[in-house]
Amino acid sequence: MQSIEVPEVVVLRLPLYVRALTQLQMAGTDVVSSQQLGGHLQMTPAQIRKDLSYFGRFGKQGRGYNIQFLLKELRDILGLTREWRACLVGVGRLGRAIINYTGFAPEGFTIVAAFDSSDDQIGTDVGGIEVLPMGDLAKIIATKNVTIGIVAVPAIQAQPVIDILVEGGVKGILNYAPVAPQVPIGIVMRNIDPVLSLQSMTFYLKD
Amino acid sequence: MQSIEVPEVVVLRLPLYVRALTQLQMAGTDVVSSQQLGGHLQMTPAQIRKDLSYFGRFGKQGRGYNIQFLLKELRDILGLTREWRACLVGVGRLGRAIINYTGFAPEGFTIVAAFDSSDDQIGTDVGGIEVLPMGDLAKIIATKNVTIGIVAVPAIQAQPVIDILVEGGVKGILNYAPVAPQVPIGIVMRNIDPVLSLQSMTFYLKD
Repeated sequence: MQSIEVPEVVVLRLPLYVRALTQLQMAGTDVVSSQQLGGHLQMTPAQIRKDLSYFGRFGKQGRGYNIQFLLKELRDILGLTREWRACLVGVGRLGRAIINYTGFAPEGFTIVAAFDSSDDQIGTDVGGIEVLPMGDLAKIIATKNVTIGIVAVPAIQAQPVIDILVEGGVKGILNYAPVAPQVPIGIVMRNIDPVLSLQSMTFYLKD
Repeated sequence: MQSIEVPEVVVLRLPLYVRALTQLQMAGTDVVSSQQLGGHLQMTPAQIRKDLSYFGRFGKQGRGYNIQFLLKELRDILGLTREWRACLVGVGRLGRAIINYTGFAPEGFTIVAAFDSSDDQIGTDVGGIEVLPMGDLAKIIATKNVTIGIVAVPAIQAQPVIDILVEGGVKGILNYAPVAPQVPIGIVMRNIDPVLSLQSMTFYLKD
């Protein structure tokens, strides 16, 4: 099947399936029904079956899903069986927290380079990574096989930094700056923005 | 209209509209077409018109949207015209970055209390807020009118902490722990999880 046939909202849910299935597996469970999985993810069983149906048949009617098999398939589908290399731009307070975040590496995401435009930061060591000048970005992306650019710069710098990353050859942008930047078609962007999350929460809290 | 009629995926997009419209307004623009707004958000004009149609008619055919009016309406719809009070649980590296994050306050989200289970943290000052013991949580939620709980504890502590917050009376959970916790019906949860974002990105990058 082609990626283009799968609605993005389904793709966004697949990592949640991976996480829930991993938790079930760690708890010693071998088989899970769509009802049980739905209970964990607060989704209906029908929604789960429909999401998974985009990728083939994973469960036998009435028997539930084999967790090990489904996890392997979902990891393959999501491209999680290889290492992904990222570079970070912006090593202020947020950037430093990102470099020191221990959740990326176990999932196969490695930050291999860090960049900043400030002379005060260039040449310093952050979490074992030397901070390089922005001028080195394209060269490092090519030589270190970097696919993902992580953006932790102030809002006003985000768009120009993202333009430089895309021109340098990254294919994905993880943006922490509180703006809505634009990327060319074919570049995948995800925004990490707690304010947006809160603003979509208050819709439900306001009454 | 009732919240329940609006698909959640639409609600999740409304803050993006608010942000894009705010940026346009700050750039001096008064009126925007769904084509232009779509260009900013990388959505089709039809999708934007459909999303907004859940809330009434905002634009006149062929005339575009009055940005000031649409912004005011969207802010009303999302509940962004009032202050929302949050408490933070967990004042480790991540929790401290959250307290010191300057993006919440301008948008009406105020962290009014911080909690930790560690004796080393209790009583210390983080960003001007005194760290309190978990036992004070329910009392503070009630007396300080706290609606939102922000969770920045290790993965294994997330579910019990969320249970305590919900029991204490918060209506929304902003969860930074890399797990898929469960909340009762009627409680709104948003997960801030860069790994999930990366994992849904690699689906598109893997070929």
